Formats: sequence, C-alpha cells, structure tokens
Amino acid sequence: MHTGGHFVPEPMTLLSLRAGGKAALARALARIEQAPDSAEVVDLLSDAYAAPTAQVVGMTGPPGVGKSTLMNALIQAWRASGQRVACIAVDPSSRRSGGALLGDRTRLSTDPEDQGIFVRSMAARDRLGGLAGLTISAMVLMRALYDVVLIETVGVGQSETEVVGVADTVLFCVQPGSGDSLQFMKAGIAEIPHVVVVTKADMGPPARRARADVKGALSLAEEPGGWAIPVLMVAAMEKRGIDDLVAAIDAHALYLRDGGRLAAARRAQAGQWLVEAVRERFGREGVRRAGDLSLATNESPFRRLAELAQRL
Amino acid sequence: MHTGGHFVPEPMTLLSLRAGGKAALARALARIEQAPDSAEVVDLLSDAYAAPTAQVVGMTGPPGVGKSTLMNALIQAWRASGQRVACIAVDPSSRRSGGALLGDRTRLSTDPEDQGIFVRSMAARDRLGGLAGLTISAMVLMRALYDVVLIETVGVGQSETEVVGVADTVLFCVQPGSGDSLQFMKAGIAEIPHVVVVTKADMGPPARRARADVKGALSLAEEPGGWAIPVLMVAAMEKRGIDDLVAAIDAHALYLRDGGRLAAARRAQAGQWLVEAVRERFGREGVRRAGDLSLATNESPFRRLAELAQRL
Repeated sequence: MHTGGHFVPEPMTLLSLRAGGKAALARALARIEQAPDSAEVVDLLSDAYAAPTAQVVGMTGPPGVGKSTLMNALIQAWRASGQRVACIAVDPSSRRSGGALLGDRTRLSTDPEDQGIFVRSMAARDRLGGLAGLTISAMVLMRALYDVVLIETVGVGQSETEVVGVADTVLFCVQPGSGDSLQFMKAGIAEIPHVVVVTKADMGPPARRARADVKGALSLAEEPGGWAIPVLMVAAMEKRGIDDLVAAIDAHALYLRDGGRLAAARRAQAGQWLVEAVRERFGREGVRRAGDLSLATNESPFRRLAELAQRL
Repeated sequence: MHTGGHFVPEPMTLLSLRAGGKAALARALARIEQAPDSAEVVDLLSDAYAAPTAQVVGMTGPPGVGKSTLMNALIQAWRASGQRVACIAVDPSSRRSGGALLGDRTRLSTDPEDQGIFVRSMAARDRLGGLAGLTISAMVLMRALYDVVLIETVGVGQSETEVVGVADTVLFCVQPGSGDSLQFMKAGIAEIPHVVVVTKADMGPPARRARADVKGALSLAEEPGGWAIPVLMVAAMEKRGIDDLVAAIDAHALYLRDGGRLAAARRAQAGQWLVEAVRERFGREGVRRAGDLSLATNESPFRRLAELAQRL
C-alpha cells in the first residue's frame, strides 16, 4: 500500500497471513522477535490464540534415536492426506559452542516449494528454563494457520517438561538395545508422554524387548480410566508403523476433544506460560535494578545475595 | 550445650562440621534447605566459600552410558589413594512422575560406614533453569570439607550448561555404537567439556571409532594454546582406563592452578550464581505481586502479559 510516497506495510492479521503464505509467516515471526510487546504483535497473537486450527504434536527423545527420520515420515504421511504442517525444531545448544559444533540440526527433507509445510529452527535460548517466549508465540501463530504443528526437542528430563507445556499430544521416542530402555524410562522421563515410539523396529527382538520394558514402566504411571498410552514400534526408514502412529495421534486428538479436555489443557498451558513470562520479566528487571553484580576477590555471593534480598 | 535447662544447639561452623562427620553434614544440609536466608547459613556458606579444599568434578552424559559404573570406579580409585569424596547426583525428574518412575537413581555401591564418602541425591527442582540453589550451597559446603566433590547430571544439552556452572572439571561420557557419536556431539554438547570419556571400551572397534569421531568434532572447538581435551576410553566394569582418567582429572587440576585460572573460574561461576539467584528472587516476588494469574475462558495470555508489563 502506497500513501503519499510513503510505504505503509500491510498490518499483520491472521487474514493477511493466511493469504500471504510462508513468506508472510516468516516476516511475522521476525516482527514478533523484534517487537514482542508491540500492540500489533499482541493483537495478532491474541487473535491466533482465540482461533486454533491445528493439533500440536510434541516429539522428544535422546539424540540418535531417529527423530529426524520419523519426522520426515510423519510429515510425508500428513502431506499425503492433504494436511498442512508447520514444524518447530527446538535447538538445545546454548551460547558457547552454538556455531561450531552444531551445524544444521533439522535435517528435514521437505520441498521448499510446498506451501503446505513450514519448518523453523528455534533456540531454546539461555538457561532461564522452559521454551523461549518466541517459541510459544510461533507455536500459537502456527496453530491458527496450519492443520498440524510438530515441535521437536532433543534430550531427556528437561525437554519433556518443556514440550508438555506447549503440545497437545506428546510423543516420546526410545530406541532398542542401547542400554536398557527400562532404565532409560526411569532416568529420563520427567513427564508422562501420550504416545511412546520405539524406533528402529527392524532390529527385531531388542525392539520388542524395549517395547515390553516401556509398557512395564508405564503401567506404574497410568491413571485408571484415563488415556491408555500406546507403545508403538516404527521403522521409519522403511515407513513401517507410520500409519499406526498417525492413527494413535488422531486417536489422542479425539480423546482430547471429548468433554472439553483440549480447551482445558490449553488454558492450563497458557496460564503456565503467563506465570513463566511474568517470572522472567520481573527477574530480568530485578537483575537490571540490582546493578553491578560482579564479585570482589573473596567476596561471598551468599552474603551479597542476603544483602540484596533485604532491599527487595 | 545446656544452659539453664534450655538445649542450645552448637552453632554450625566449618570446624564443627569437620569434627561431626557425615551426620553433621546431613544436618547442615537440612538446615540450609529449611532456612537458606538465616544468618547462620549465610555465615557458614560464606566461610566454606572462602576455604575450598576440593576439586569439583562434574560428570554428565545420556542415560544408559554407564555413569554409575564409572562413578563407582572413580570413587574406589580416589578412596584407595586416601582421598575423601562427596557425591551429588542431580535428579533431572520433575514434579509429576518423580516418585513413580524414578526409583533410586544413584546406584552407587559405597560403604555406609566409610566416613570418607558422602553421597546425596538432589532434585534439579522446577523448570526455573540451572541447578537449584540448594545444590550450589551443598557443593560449596562439601568443597570445604572433602578432597573431591563429584557432581553427576543426566542428559544432554541443558545438563552440561548446568554442571559447567558448578564444576572445575567437566567430564562428558559418550558410548560407542549407539547412533553416531559425531552426531551426538553435534546435537548434545552445549558446553565444551574438559575430558571426554568413551565408555564400554570393551566393545573394541566401535569404541575406537567413537573416540575418533569425538576427537574430530572437538578439533573444531579447541582453542590453540588452551587445554587439550583428552578423549579417553574406559571399561569401568573391568576397571580398565580408570587410572588414566584419574590422571587426566589430576592434570586438569594442575592446569587450573596455573596462573590463577581456578580462582578466576570459580569467581566467574559465583558471579553467575548470584545473577541467577537475583533473577530467581525477583521473578518469584514478581509472580507474588502479580496476584491471581489464572486466565478466564478465551482470555489471551499475551494481552494479560502486556497489561502486567505496563505496571512493572
């Protein structure tokens, strides 16, 4: 739009984003990052929050378990049935080695010309914990524009907690053989997933053993009358088990729609984001107000904190 | 001490803790947890901060890599040479499944009668990020009472960042064969460790391949003239490679003592704890002051946050 020689950009709205395709979404994400507190961004995100269209699927598991291969297979299956998919790959690496060791983590083989698939890598950001505010905003926006939003995080422990905070349906991937899946479950799962995927099912007996171990571990955690957690075996390379996995994800979507579970779960998530965002804002402001926090030689951080706490 | 019929507990001091053994340390940790801001605790921790005696060794790596076996072997080697060892196993699991799936994570086979080894499991606590304040306090106290403090965290990504924030020497464990060590390094390492341990060296060629992969990945990250990161192979079950690992840990201690590196690194760590602690305090206070943060049906968390931010 040109007015008197000045270029006035179209206001970002859900409507303009739906019309503008992937380029418009990329611009909107850049705008959210630059000006998260602007009225324009708050309006857009509030509109998107009120008009969700997608199921949000979170996927987590240790590195090397085969998440990228599985994501490619899932995306293909969804695209084949005409569903439009947005992907967020959350990058766990932090400051120092970010560039050097990391490389391209997503390794998704998607067609860049396909307007029905949007892929974005995002930093988990610093150690403040939880998924970065930008990831949540991006998810909310994509949730109002696509049919499926797939969020991938790497790791164990922390990452399930994070993905549970933004996903409707959480997939947890384990691989057979490497160590003991049972021990893995004991050590690694901080939150109960909705679907467990044993990857590399072409390994045969170890995969079946891993599946039995996981089922055993989950039997301790399942709530009677609640969602029965399926433990599926897939061999994503050969596309085996993908249909069953898609069906399990669909079944969980149906389960969530029953009795308003989905709306309640999303409202609880949003409440939690708000608490975290408030904590983060005030914490940042507190650090700013505390001023110079560097310690003198031999100065005790414990005494300094006690002094600062008194001024709170 | 009895005074006029009232029981007045001995004040906790480093001296009383040195005399009181493991029971006294356990009581002090309980007191730190109950009353972290009390003058008594601040005094004790400040004294301990000023009088470190131990090298703090952090160990991290994915579940199933064999950290417990390796810890047992290291502890035995240190005890055999007369060193007194304190261990903190940081438990990554969070709220919900904590009890049910977790069980006893440490699996350390230490002699409970041995006053020279103290083991404690600690929660990584909620998603606020970083190691919990209690873990830092416990480490500082143990650092003034023992010869070695060994801190174990599970996982990839986040956990290295955490352990780097408290340890002098960081060991990162990888196992051969499972997936690709190189990819693992790419995906999982957020901070550069000081020593890399390839476990299960009895696997032979896969272990040597893993070692070569890791060395290749690290060559991109090493700083010229700095610490050359050793990549060692151990078979902890058969106690192979443990002496070399102990020697590498000792060598890093010597490296740190050179030119005041250790004091500088510890002061930087303490400065970072202080920033995190201030952020956490103010954040918590901000959430308290914000009052009821629950959302009405269809209320946008983005709008609510924008309103709260204006009142900041």
